[in-house]
Amino acid sequence: MSPSTPSPSTPFRSIQWQGTSLRLLDQRQLPGTTAYLVCETADAVAEAIRSMAVRGAPAIGVAAAFGLVLAAQQGENLEEKAAMLRSTRPTAVNLMWAIDLMLQSPIADWEAKALALYEADIAVNQAIGDHAQALIPDEATIIHHCNTGSLATVDYGTALGVIRIAHERGKTIQAILDETRPRLQGASLSAYECQAFGIPHTVIVDGAAAWVMKTRQVDCCIVGCDRVAANGDVANKIGTYALALAAKAHQVPFYVACPLSTLDLSTPSGEAITIEERSAQEITHIQGQPICPSGTPVFNPAFDVTPASLVSAIITEKGIIKPPFSETLARIAAQAL
Amino acid sequence: MSPSTPSPSTPFRSIQWQGTSLRLLDQRQLPGTTAYLVCETADAVAEAIRSMAVRGAPAIGVAAAFGLVLAAQQGENLEEKAAMLRSTRPTAVNLMWAIDLMLQSPIADWEAKALALYEADIAVNQAIGDHAQALIPDEATIIHHCNTGSLATVDYGTALGVIRIAHERGKTIQAILDETRPRLQGASLSAYECQAFGIPHTVIVDGAAAWVMKTRQVDCCIVGCDRVAANGDVANKIGTYALALAAKAHQVPFYVACPLSTLDLSTPSGEAITIEERSAQEITHIQGQPICPSGTPVFNPAFDVTPASLVSAIITEKGIIKPPFSETLARIAAQAL
Repeated sequence: MSPSTPSPSTPFRSIQWQGTSLRLLDQRQLPGTTAYLVCETADAVAEAIRSMAVRGAPAIGVAAAFGLVLAAQQGENLEEKAAMLRSTRPTAVNLMWAIDLMLQSPIADWEAKALALYEADIAVNQAIGDHAQALIPDEATIIHHCNTGSLATVDYGTALGVIRIAHERGKTIQAILDETRPRLQGASLSAYECQAFGIPHTVIVDGAAAWVMKTRQVDCCIVGCDRVAANGDVANKIGTYALALAAKAHQVPFYVACPLSTLDLSTPSGEAITIEERSAQEITHIQGQPICPSGTPVFNPAFDVTPASLVSAIITEKGIIKPPFSETLARIAAQAL
Repeated sequence: MSPSTPSPSTPFRSIQWQGTSLRLLDQRQLPGTTAYLVCETADAVAEAIRSMAVRGAPAIGVAAAFGLVLAAQQGENLEEKAAMLRSTRPTAVNLMWAIDLMLQSPIADWEAKALALYEADIAVNQAIGDHAQALIPDEATIIHHCNTGSLATVDYGTALGVIRIAHERGKTIQAILDETRPRLQGASLSAYECQAFGIPHTVIVDGAAAWVMKTRQVDCCIVGCDRVAANGDVANKIGTYALALAAKAHQVPFYVACPLSTLDLSTPSGEAITIEERSAQEITHIQGQPICPSGTPVFNPAFDVTPASLVSAIITEKGIIKPPFSETLARIAAQAL
């Protein structure tokens, strides 16, 4: 019997390897419907990443690794399939990192390698959540953007993992969840996770975060990220930059939680990061219903770049990294080798 | 035959008086459906304001005035109906202003008074748009929040009126429209108006405005408002404060366009402004479809307050008002008496 991933410690798991297929919790249908996509080919995995059935920088890295295992099992052109998987989402560097790690291993070891990446992601997220506790007061109101939880990773999550672990350790946490237009990952997925884990939470529209900081005690903002440049500039879901500007204006600490696989020292600064633009329909339609007049022009960047100067700390599995990021990121990357 | 309002110069008009009833373009159904609500009682007008079939600070002031005319025609308790109309939306001061003006007139003159308010609103908006042109370059990219156009007023509009008049005068305008969650007035109503008037426009999610300022040439932001306090603090649609913070960070001028009826010198600062909270369903559902897990807690303030320090100028029918607003607003209010 082929190895498969263990059953989840959480009530759901975004990615499940089944020996000759990859089972993905279809996040486009949450929270209304719990449905699974079974991907039997690398092409199907690529389409699941592209269409965001599976999303979140760490999760798509692991999913792509299993996509390569499927390609190898089926004797496909591996170079071609690797290139196809890389092209699905251009901004998240974890995708490129996971594919590179696979390609550096002997093909005979690919399944074991993908399973190791899968297990490592859980441990890394737990370590991020553990280190982060030094920054989280015993009673804390925390603003969170997008979804960065168990659904965006193999388990626990990055920024939402920090919140979950704080809650599990008995801290009194109130999570303020940006709904995160256009795809509403905060309103749908993060609210779903908070509900599942019993974490007190409140959903707000993205435009209300600054007002919440002005009128309530907010202890910090925590976000995940898709790529950290060598200077500490951070690419993350659209709206992150606006949130960071508001945090700065209110002297609220702004934390980025991510595995070191998100660090891309070959990208000197945020200006060099490719920002994916997604379809107009993500803005003009919600759940298939039009909200704009037909033919309305839109601009739909999926990500933005928050400059390092707005980031208070980057929380990784190796510890909390503080400015000056050009130095501290280079040092931690050297340690991680 | 009873007097009625003239047919519109624009392809649609939000408010039409028909002698014994008030016909309102039902903005909840736009852009998909052009339907009219015919209100035959003050109660029906109040419900139309409360449910946002008619919305926009100037428009609800005029609608409430006609609501009082209906109450008088039908011999209702006028004090009671005035109180009911006032209570429909607590933040917009134009509503209180219009009701006060009606109550100060002899009841026999109410219909003429409401018609005068109606006509004055058009002239005021044209004057705002005219004065504002001194601030708008011949080629301008302008970020706009919510809807402040012909639909939010009797005609022309405040902030969107400025954009429309710039376009009509041959300036090369690109309007960037914040979609404006939760009710999406930007994506639906402002896009509808820009399309109707042939104004080049692009809809973005609210969280993208800061990123647009960072990566594109943006010449200014223009918003309307629901109440200006004596010190120049401005209450407007939720998300305005975040936009103003982003504008400040990018040194983009931030303009507020409003009639002097929006000025409330009896409110010393923004802290004294009541902020309406609306139903959770505005966030948890879009077009009747749930986007959050059932029972998700939300915080839904309809407005926020932008401090005077973030406002570059307030554009009124009497001209452009600049800081220090405590002085300049008092001076213009004295002139307007």
